[in-house]
Amino acid sequence: MQKIQIGIVGHGNIGKGAVKAIAATPDMELKAIFTRRNPEIIASTITDIAVLPISAAEKMTDEIDVMLLCGGSATDLPEQGPFFASMFNTVDSYDNHTNITSYMAAIDAAAKNNTAVIASGWDPGTFSMMRVIFESTIPDGENYTFWGTGVSQGHSDAIRQIDGVKYAIQYTIPIESAVKAVRSGKRPKFETKDKHLRQCYVVAEPDASKAEIEEKIKKMPHYFIDYETTINFIDANEFILEHSRMPHGGMVLRSGNTCGNTHIMEFSLKLDSNPEFTASIMTAYARAAYRMSREGMFGAKTVFDIPLSYLSPKDRDSLIKELL
Amino acid sequence: MQKIQIGIVGHGNIGKGAVKAIAATPDMELKAIFTRRNPEIIASTITDIAVLPISAAEKMTDEIDVMLLCGGSATDLPEQGPFFASMFNTVDSYDNHTNITSYMAAIDAAAKNNTAVIASGWDPGTFSMMRVIFESTIPDGENYTFWGTGVSQGHSDAIRQIDGVKYAIQYTIPIESAVKAVRSGKRPKFETKDKHLRQCYVVAEPDASKAEIEEKIKKMPHYFIDYETTINFIDANEFILEHSRMPHGGMVLRSGNTCGNTHIMEFSLKLDSNPEFTASIMTAYARAAYRMSREGMFGAKTVFDIPLSYLSPKDRDSLIKELL
Repeated sequence: MQKIQIGIVGHGNIGKGAVKAIAATPDMELKAIFTRRNPEIIASTITDIAVLPISAAEKMTDEIDVMLLCGGSATDLPEQGPFFASMFNTVDSYDNHTNITSYMAAIDAAAKNNTAVIASGWDPGTFSMMRVIFESTIPDGENYTFWGTGVSQGHSDAIRQIDGVKYAIQYTIPIESAVKAVRSGKRPKFETKDKHLRQCYVVAEPDASKAEIEEKIKKMPHYFIDYETTINFIDANEFILEHSRMPHGGMVLRSGNTCGNTHIMEFSLKLDSNPEFTASIMTAYARAAYRMSREGMFGAKTVFDIPLSYLSPKDRDSLIKELL
Repeated sequence: MQKIQIGIVGHGNIGKGAVKAIAATPDMELKAIFTRRNPEIIASTITDIAVLPISAAEKMTDEIDVMLLCGGSATDLPEQGPFFASMFNTVDSYDNHTNITSYMAAIDAAAKNNTAVIASGWDPGTFSMMRVIFESTIPDGENYTFWGTGVSQGHSDAIRQIDGVKYAIQYTIPIESAVKAVRSGKRPKFETKDKHLRQCYVVAEPDASKAEIEEKIKKMPHYFIDYETTINFIDANEFILEHSRMPHGGMVLRSGNTCGNTHIMEFSLKLDSNPEFTASIMTAYARAAYRMSREGMFGAKTVFDIPLSYLSPKDRDSLIKELL
C-alpha cells in the first residue's frame, strides 16, 4: 500500500511532536520538514529527514499528500494556513477562538481543490466533539469545560514579561469542588474564578523584589486578577528539573436530564505532553484530509464535519468488528 | 420550520424513553407509536399520541420521516429492522455484537432508498465512537471498556429462571482497582473476572432454600461462574422500593504513549435511566438519518459514518461559534 506522504511546516513543540506521531503511524511517511528558520540548524539536530525552506514547498505539490501546519495561531497560521491550503491538503490546530470564523473563511477560500482541516487539537478539537455529542444527546442540560492540570503558555509568558523574572511557569488547575458540583447532577453557575486556580513557579533574578513580582502577578488584568493565584519562588535548578515538561489535560462534562432522571457525561484527558498529543490528533486528521480530498470533499473542514471512520487506519469492516 | 416527523416502533422501556426524548427536541414531532400488541391498551396509558398496529405503517411512508425502532435485538430487530428500512429511514440500538455484521448486511440490502442507522445506543454507540477516537489519536496504546454500575437485564433474567426466585436484579460493577490500574498509565492485562463484580438482589419464594439459590447463581455458566458474585436476599417491599429503576453507565479508557510520554483518555457515563438515555441518543441519530436521506446517503450506517454536525439541531455556524 502507498503510504500517505506528509509534510510538516514548523519545527517547534508541535512540529517535533508531529515527527514522532508520524513515526508511530504505519500508513504515513514524513517527506520533509519546512521551516522559516535556517534549515541547516534544524537538520543538524535530526537525521534522515529532509529539512527545507518554506519556499521549496510549492514545487512539491505532487510529492506531499498532506501538510501539517504546526505553527502558532497568533501570527504563523493566519499567514501560512491560506498559503498552504491553496496548494496542499492541510491540517492545523488553530486555537484562537475569537477569530476562528474569519480564519475558516480565509482557509475555505484558499482550499478550492484541497481539504483543509482546521482547529484539530484537543481544545478546540476533541473537546469540541464532546460538547456536540453531549449537547445533541441530552438537550436539557449544561456543558462544562475544565482545563488542567497543565501549563498555560500564555500565562507563563505573561509572568516572564515582569521585570526581575528569570524563569516562570503557570499551571492551570481545575477547582475540585466545582468539578464535584457538576458530577453531583446539579447545574451550578460559575464565575470565571470559580472553576480554575492558577499556580505559578517563578525564578527571580538575584536582585529582584519577590514581593513586588508577586503583587504584579496577582494584580495582572485578564490573566490573574480574577483568579485565586498562588506563587512559589524556586531556584533555577528546581525549575529546570521539575518544570520543564508540558503536561496538560482537562475535562468536558455534561449534567443533563430526561424528565426526572439525571445523566452525567464526562470526558477527560491527562497528558504528559500537550504538544505530542496535539500532534497525534493532527496526524489522525491528516488521514481524514487525505481521504476526503480523494473523494472531492474540498474546502475548510472542522472536527464536526468528518465521520470518525476517516480517522482510523482500519477499514470499515474491521472497525465494526473490533470497535463497534 | 417543518418539524421532523417521527414514528416509534415498540412501546417497551426504550419506546417510552423515546416519547420523552422527542418531546425534549423542538425540531421533532411524534407522529405515531406502532405496536404488535393491542394498540388500545397502550393508547389508554398515554394521551395525544396515535397508537397504531404495525400494519398501519406502510400507508404512512409520506407522513413519517424517521422510524425509531425500539424493539429488542434478540427477536424484534432482526425482523423489524429490514422490514422498516425498506420503507422508512430508521434508527435502532441493535446490540448483539456477534451478529452485527449480518444484521447490518440485511439492513443495507433493505435500505435502498432510505438511511438506516444501526447500533446507535451508548454501547454499541457512544462508547464505540470513543474507542475509535481514542485508538486513532494514540496508536500505541490499549482501550479498556468497563460497564456499570448498572442493571444487566440478561443477568437479572437468568437469575429469575431459577426455581424459588420471585424477583431478582443484577448490578454489574467495575472493579475499582482495575480502573485505577488503567488510569495509572500501565496497560494491565485483564481476565474477564478482573474487571467486573456482579451484585445480585433476590427475593426468594417463602418455601425456597436460599442456600440452593445462591449456589445455583454462583455456579451458573457464562453468567456468573467466572465472576466475584455477591447475593443479597431481600424482601419484596425493599426490592420494589430500591431496585425498580434502571441505572447504568460505564467508562471507556485508553492508556497510550507517544515515545516516553503517557496519555490517559477517559470517557464515562453515569445514567439514572439506561432506556431514556439510549432513546435520547437514537433521537439525535434520527436527526442525522433525516438529513443524510435528504442528501441521498442511503443504506445502513453506523455511528462511525456520520459527521457530528448531523446530530445537532444547530447550524454549522452556530456549532463553530458556540461549541468548537
